[in-house]
Amino acid sequence: MNASEFRKKGKEMVDYVADYMEGIEKRQVYPDVEPGYLRPLIPATAPQEPETFEAIMNDVEKIIMPGAASPACTELETVMMDWLGKMLELPETFLAESAGEGGGVIQGSASEATLVALLAARTRVTRQLQITSPELSQAAIMEKLVAYSSDQAHSSVERAGLIGGVKLKAIPSDGNFAMRACALKEALERDKASGLIPFFVVATLGTTSCCSFDNLLEVGPICNQENVWLHIDAAYAGSAFICPEFRHLLNGVEFADSFNFNPHKWLLVNFDCSAMWVKKRSSLTGAFKLDPLYLKHSHQDSGLITDYRHWQLPLGRRFRSLKMWFVFRMYGVKGLQAYIRKHVQLSHEFESLVRRDPCFEICAEVTLGLVCFRLKGSNKLNEALLEKINNARKIHLVPCHLKDKFVLRFAICSRTVESVHIQQAWKHIKELATQLLQTEKE
Amino acid sequence: MNASEFRKKGKEMVDYVADYMEGIEKRQVYPDVEPGYLRPLIPATAPQEPETFEAIMNDVEKIIMPGAASPACTELETVMMDWLGKMLELPETFLAESAGEGGGVIQGSASEATLVALLAARTRVTRQLQITSPELSQAAIMEKLVAYSSDQAHSSVERAGLIGGVKLKAIPSDGNFAMRACALKEALERDKASGLIPFFVVATLGTTSCCSFDNLLEVGPICNQENVWLHIDAAYAGSAFICPEFRHLLNGVEFADSFNFNPHKWLLVNFDCSAMWVKKRSSLTGAFKLDPLYLKHSHQDSGLITDYRHWQLPLGRRFRSLKMWFVFRMYGVKGLQAYIRKHVQLSHEFESLVRRDPCFEICAEVTLGLVCFRLKGSNKLNEALLEKINNARKIHLVPCHLKDKFVLRFAICSRTVESVHIQQAWKHIKELATQLLQTEKE
Repeated sequence: MNASEFRKKGKEMVDYVADYMEGIEKRQVYPDVEPGYLRPLIPATAPQEPETFEAIMNDVEKIIMPGAASPACTELETVMMDWLGKMLELPETFLAESAGEGGGVIQGSASEATLVALLAARTRVTRQLQITSPELSQAAIMEKLVAYSSDQAHSSVERAGLIGGVKLKAIPSDGNFAMRACALKEALERDKASGLIPFFVVATLGTTSCCSFDNLLEVGPICNQENVWLHIDAAYAGSAFICPEFRHLLNGVEFADSFNFNPHKWLLVNFDCSAMWVKKRSSLTGAFKLDPLYLKHSHQDSGLITDYRHWQLPLGRRFRSLKMWFVFRMYGVKGLQAYIRKHVQLSHEFESLVRRDPCFEICAEVTLGLVCFRLKGSNKLNEALLEKINNARKIHLVPCHLKDKFVLRFAICSRTVESVHIQQAWKHIKELATQLLQTEKE
Repeated sequence: MNASEFRKKGKEMVDYVADYMEGIEKRQVYPDVEPGYLRPLIPATAPQEPETFEAIMNDVEKIIMPGAASPACTELETVMMDWLGKMLELPETFLAESAGEGGGVIQGSASEATLVALLAARTRVTRQLQITSPELSQAAIMEKLVAYSSDQAHSSVERAGLIGGVKLKAIPSDGNFAMRACALKEALERDKASGLIPFFVVATLGTTSCCSFDNLLEVGPICNQENVWLHIDAAYAGSAFICPEFRHLLNGVEFADSFNFNPHKWLLVNFDCSAMWVKKRSSLTGAFKLDPLYLKHSHQDSGLITDYRHWQLPLGRRFRSLKMWFVFRMYGVKGLQAYIRKHVQLSHEFESLVRRDPCFEICAEVTLGLVCFRLKGSNKLNEALLEKINNARKIHLVPCHLKDKFVLRFAICSRTVESVHIQQAWKHIKELATQLLQTEKE
């Protein structure tokens, strides 16, 4: 949608809201629909080609309004999470529409998804142990629990451990910044031998530092053998898996208990919208379910409806699936794939500019939209370059450490980025670097 | 703002957004402002009288845009939380502008605020005990920790206990559904005698069931004496404290470590916006603070800026303080007070209709916008009445249990509610009740 279309449609939406408010007394207080009314009214998958805004607004009137805020809010979310799961080719067990026990939910952030998964895993292992070892108190169990992630995992994983009150250990990553079988196995064996209880592993697909990928095909089977909950954090990279050529990066997801990524990061859905799937719904709800009378409703025990409040930390919820519905339909799967591909192509364009320059080096494999690079030379030199770049305020870069090296991160992430911006940015960086190297020599 | 004004202003906003997007390349990537730039540009308190939309939009251009998303997002939040704190006459120690150590933050929901407070309290007591009793392991401490709330507290308090891995005990409330000193003291003494460690009390102002108020002036001093963190959950009722005639309900807040209520519930701010204040910022940040390189920034250690990511569960944040800024200015404090007063007056109008009818009874004191009532008679009769009311779908009521009685809750909470709606609702309830009593007789 270009700016002039946005002006037109945006103003129509303002009228739509005003009309709704003016006519609200004529509307029914409580919807007439039955649980499950929405799914048959909506296609089973996202459209491949873009649809018009008018088509979607017609459906809002026809499909959403009769279901009011609830159940429409819940039911659209379930179907949108199935749409998105299918776009990623997630195993059927993660989809709500399958006969299995899985399903998806929108969380606010990947941090929350990781915490929710850790809490669910903590509850699962505690209940199992209370059956097999009834002599253990809950505190005695908590004291022995250990979670694991790679040393490249996001800080929110460590935070989830802090909040959940369990130990979290960092597994040393390999030369490509990936968690591998041998290092994980070693930690598990060592900890089990000293009486600890491994219960939770977070594998990262697309780390924050350098967009590296933990080896799921190695790590997954170990977690399954050891009865350890495997959570996959693909916060940034997950969006790319809608392209067949990147889907192999998700191979091994079949071993996971939960999987999460942020459509608000790279799939054109506004913040916040963090998509989380679990293989077994009851593992989540088992950790949080409380049912006071003022939250009871007549369909509670029918099994027909999903109470998302048991899937998350807060009680209240916003109607975030509407954003997904609009974006998926207005772009179509093909439009979204084209968007991802363009970013990846631009990052490779930047990568080759860097590689062609003998003063610079690439510091990690470029797979998606992130390029890790630096001046060949000291950390001090690169810190000075970063300062120069960010002080100039034409572009903004965020650094990281990779194996004790101070590294600059060039991230392609704007909706409107084009080749010309990449070229300008490189020219700018190059100029500042030349100035810097000149000063160093003097 | 009426519908025709909304249409006009809404359409101007659509153009504002489109203009912004079209001109985005001419804008600076990184703001020029220094930490603390915003507070001097904004009055120290909310206006008493309403301001125009134009005046606010002028300030958006002048004050917010130069500070981009950040630091404007953070700094406006700090100032808005001070504005709101002053509207409630919170003690100065809770305000960020005072020389003290307190401040406010926007959370997503009261459930999150309770959990964040519990986790902060857990960290505080654990650190204290690790100094005074170094022989205790963290798990040994966790095993002994006990939190308390009244038996009328919201289910999210129990949930916070579950997530935090600590015991939560319900204190029996008195005849007015309030937590009182004697019952709390008894529980504390009993638990301490059996080796447990009380560390956290949630007092509720305006319970979900019947809008009762725990006795802060009794409970507060006990918590302070016992070095127990006192958190106040005023999710619904908090908004009313901006009216001088209701402010006495908050007396005793000076004993609290943290206080929370939801402007999204009753102060005309859209969902979500849950306002939380703490007396000591470092108690919160101490529980969550982790600083990886990619989240470091140059002002980190200056003490000049607030890193709200250490105050909450998720990492990412939305610009929710803008909603507060617009609402507070467009209504003015007087407009907001008038709104609260109107709802309270309407609930008393409903109360007197109920009281005048000999078939019905009022089940709890009506203080704010909630009326708890029932037919004199059996629970079964009242369950049947509720079913009849909700099946008719003209109004929707949610029940509760008060001392084993099944009670109907009439909540005044719509922005556009008028006396005529109250009269219609009562007439409708009365008709259905008459039908029901007729059937019962036959």
